[in-house]
Formats: sequence, structure tokens, C-alpha cells
Amino acid sequence: MAEFERHVFVCINERAPGHPRGCCSAKDSAPIREALKARCKLEGLAARVRINKSACLDQCEHGPTIVVYPEAVWYGFVKMEDVEEIVQTHLIGGAPVQRLVLPQECINTPHCPHRAGGVQLGGL
Amino acid sequence: MAEFERHVFVCINERAPGHPRGCCSAKDSAPIREALKARCKLEGLAARVRINKSACLDQCEHGPTIVVYPEAVWYGFVKMEDVEEIVQTHLIGGAPVQRLVLPQECINTPHCPHRAGGVQLGGL
Repeated sequence: MAEFERHVFVCINERAPGHPRGCCSAKDSAPIREALKARCKLEGLAARVRINKSACLDQCEHGPTIVVYPEAVWYGFVKMEDVEEIVQTHLIGGAPVQRLVLPQECINTPHCPHRAGGVQLGGL
Repeated sequence: MAEFERHVFVCINERAPGHPRGCCSAKDSAPIREALKARCKLEGLAARVRINKSACLDQCEHGPTIVVYPEAVWYGFVKMEDVEEIVQTHLIGGAPVQRLVLPQECINTPHCPHRAGGVQLGGL
């Protein structure tokens, strides 16, 4: 066995209620991660794909946020009902789920349509 | 600005004292991560390189464990005194610090020279 074929990081960061950036945890990222992990196990992917908990990925306004490496595909606004498609299309089929991919101009930036007023980058 | 040039995940998982697999947190991974982050900031890398906290990377016996994407370079047994070399050689210079790279046969496996008796894969 060698390194993971894919390493999926699901942000489970939790901020205090009312924080202007929000957080992935408040948008059910933890159960989404559990569902991804369970589906991967059922599909026999557990040894090749790791569904990892991550601290803040600093894309809070786009949460729940997931990044898949090594291809560096960033998913945003992921919902529980998207899990099956991510597993089948991307983790098994190898093709990112385009409708969930965050635009390049939304990643790692203080200004994007989802961020109010250019909040400072930060995170945990 | 676009996605990170490099995304560095430092395992800060904490297990109960005496757990047979140990944990990265008990081996000072949190201060190592802080030092990496501070050095990257000083070097002007903060916008291009993210030094992320990660939950369990499931390589506990090799901890403190760090994985650098997108190149999927796994570092093990990282010490505070290795931080400068990782920043200068890898994150600035682009060349992994070979002396810290975990052998392929040690990653994602229940059996390797560092694992006692083939402990089950698991983690958080």
C-alpha cells in the first residue's frame, strides 16, 4: 500500500455564533464528512481515499468547504445530497463535480461575490 | 489571487495518554505548525502557502506528520529545528527535504517498521 490516491479535507471548523464569516461546522460539515467517509467505505475506497477532518480552510463564506488533493479541486456550498455524486463522479469516476467547484476567483481572496466587504483572511 | 500554491497540513490530533499509536499533538505538532506559519508569514508566503491544522492524518507512529499538497510529500518525525529547512528548501525552493520524507512503504499501511504488530488503521 502506498500514499492515498485521493486525500479529501472537509472543513469542520467551528466559530462562535454570529461571527461575520460564519463557519463550515454550522452548515453541517461534520455530518457531511461522516457521510462521505461511510460511502467511501461501502464502495471499498477506504484504503485509497482518506476523508479527513480539517481545521479552517479559510473559505468560510463558501462553506461547507471541501478540498480534494492531489488535484486541488475546491468544492463549496456542499450539501448532504451532494455526497453521493462526489463519491460516484469524482472519487470513483475521477471527474470533479463541476457544479460544486468553486470559481478560482473565489478561493484564497479577501474579495469575492460571497464575501461581504473584503473581510480579512485569517482563520484558525 | 487563486488557489494556494502549496497547502500544508500539519496533524494536531490528540489522543489520550498511553494510546498505543501515540499522537502528533503529544510530539509538539501544534507549536511546530505555529512556527511554520510564522516563518511563512515572515517570508511573504502567507497568500500563497497555507499552513493548515489537520485532524488525524492516520500516520500516528510517524508523527509529527505533515503532508504538503499538491505534490503529496509526506514528512514524518518533524522537529522544531526542521522548520527552517522545510520553509527554505521546500516551500520557497520547491525541493522536498528528502531526509524528512517518509518512505512510501510507511504511508497508509497497517505494517511498517514504525508500527507495532500491525495496529488497525483508523484515526479520527
